[in-house]
Amino acid sequence: MLGLAGLPLGLSFRFLDPSPNACAGEVGELVVGEYGDPEALDRLAAGADVVTYEFENVPVDAARRIAAVPGAAALEKGQDRLREKELFRSLGIDTARFGTLERTGLPALVKTRRLGYDGKGQRRVEAAEPIGREEVAEAIVPFDRELSILGVRGQDGETRFWPVGENVHRDGILQVTRAPAENAPQADAETICRALLDELDYVGVLAVELFDVGGSLLANEFAPRVHNTAHWTIDGAATSQFENHLRAILGLPLGSTEAGARCVMVNLIGSVPSVEELLAMPGARVHLYGKAPRPGRKVGHVTLLDPAAETVDRAVALATAAL
Amino acid sequence: MLGLAGLPLGLSFRFLDPSPNACAGEVGELVVGEYGDPEALDRLAAGADVVTYEFENVPVDAARRIAAVPGAAALEKGQDRLREKELFRSLGIDTARFGTLERTGLPALVKTRRLGYDGKGQRRVEAAEPIGREEVAEAIVPFDRELSILGVRGQDGETRFWPVGENVHRDGILQVTRAPAENAPQADAETICRALLDELDYVGVLAVELFDVGGSLLANEFAPRVHNTAHWTIDGAATSQFENHLRAILGLPLGSTEAGARCVMVNLIGSVPSVEELLAMPGARVHLYGKAPRPGRKVGHVTLLDPAAETVDRAVALATAAL
Repeated sequence: MLGLAGLPLGLSFRFLDPSPNACAGEVGELVVGEYGDPEALDRLAAGADVVTYEFENVPVDAARRIAAVPGAAALEKGQDRLREKELFRSLGIDTARFGTLERTGLPALVKTRRLGYDGKGQRRVEAAEPIGREEVAEAIVPFDRELSILGVRGQDGETRFWPVGENVHRDGILQVTRAPAENAPQADAETICRALLDELDYVGVLAVELFDVGGSLLANEFAPRVHNTAHWTIDGAATSQFENHLRAILGLPLGSTEAGARCVMVNLIGSVPSVEELLAMPGARVHLYGKAPRPGRKVGHVTLLDPAAETVDRAVALATAAL
Repeated sequence: MLGLAGLPLGLSFRFLDPSPNACAGEVGELVVGEYGDPEALDRLAAGADVVTYEFENVPVDAARRIAAVPGAAALEKGQDRLREKELFRSLGIDTARFGTLERTGLPALVKTRRLGYDGKGQRRVEAAEPIGREEVAEAIVPFDRELSILGVRGQDGETRFWPVGENVHRDGILQVTRAPAENAPQADAETICRALLDELDYVGVLAVELFDVGGSLLANEFAPRVHNTAHWTIDGAATSQFENHLRAILGLPLGSTEAGARCVMVNLIGSVPSVEELLAMPGARVHLYGKAPRPGRKVGHVTLLDPAAETVDRAVALATAAL
């Protein structure tokens, strides 16, 4: 999606991916290799104006080697749930209680500090038990809803923010984002995102996942990259997260982040429903990734613009038929 | 732009172009060859679900050989200005007087019947002179403005039409399209376009260029393909001409052709201005084609959404600086 956003700007792309079938190969040159392979990294970066990433588990050393933008610092902090939460706290951003089970109370969630995603690498703990050094406990927050804020910061320090989205997960995987979220605490969310962007001297797009607890926000985690909860911006915002990420890392002027419609994004998980049925939904914009289907894998998404309630129900039904 | 529209629908592309540098190669496999080369055509079509064209001077025999959609009939009539005008008349569609100089009166335009575009292959005639068999005379119409209507027809015969655009040419080359055009005779334009679509049993997108003479429409010519005067639909319509062309030829449901904004499309002709300056314009969506600059060549376009008048002036100034 970064490639699709960049081709009309006259950009050309080279991608690094461990799989020779990576869908990015449709819109640029594909270097097949591990993210930590120095030789592959050097081939990736050769002659490029700028190198970026859209996967936060890229090794920090790899990002350093090729001077990736956003910088390795954001990657390093985002990869470790403990340091991430300490960063939030150091900036005066509220989080759930975390650390030891004594601090969090019981029941609690225990998560691996590294490499967890989509609900993997976490367990619910009902009674006191030992917590490993590579784990961190989090209090279970009785939140009203999950929100996310996406911001972009340019080379000159200018920041812009898209409207907050409301996210619904299923089995730990994002299923639906509605944006702009109703009665969203937009200003508070922007304050949190801006504090992170400025602290990290960040360039590019950054996502922050938030819990809304009675109108107060707790930061859950951030992702130093374009983010699934803002895929709706391709169709529903004046400038998509992908285009603004490219504009930022290239030092180009940022585009407007205004939303032009009430958007509902529905992930296609595990398999692709009938394209004909998807396209028949009024206001549906279909995005397939060209990825081989497998259980739990996001293979596409559909954005509905100003949809009727029954259209949303229909999209969710189509998207989950194969779950 | 067809490729960019189709990748998110899960389509993959193979293109035929005489140039190894054809920009379509960025989003699919490129077969380099002449449009009339049987061997190249067969390589193009091998294994494809459907073959289409976006250039009306493709040889009719080539379109027949690979069973292109839209069919060769539309191509054949669209390639010959005389047969094209006779088709209009047979459908009760008004045109400027045409044929011999006796019929048109003087002064008149004399155009080659075939292969003219962007004002090439035509001359103004002030006094009686012989007209070649491969030429056709046209009366000079004192029109108020030039308009165009784009329509799409599905395999099931359903038709949809985008809002009429108003076009301004410079040196015979399209420079600006405004859509929806103010006080446009939308219904009359749709009647003309629908008559053509149905007569040709057409599948795909078709453009008709029109003269507006005091609110009455004269058909000038049609193009059996996606069309420069509807490039604004990428950013300004619910479904772009490119996506709906693909949907039509694949037998998929057509998308809404509604416009979401007042759009001004400005062609970049001859050379690409500073991308930074283009992107700095409020509401500007930039589309560069990756084509080498040369005089008179369209190398990109900018769509302005709900622009202020001074933004339009600025875009035209940037676009024409290199003319």
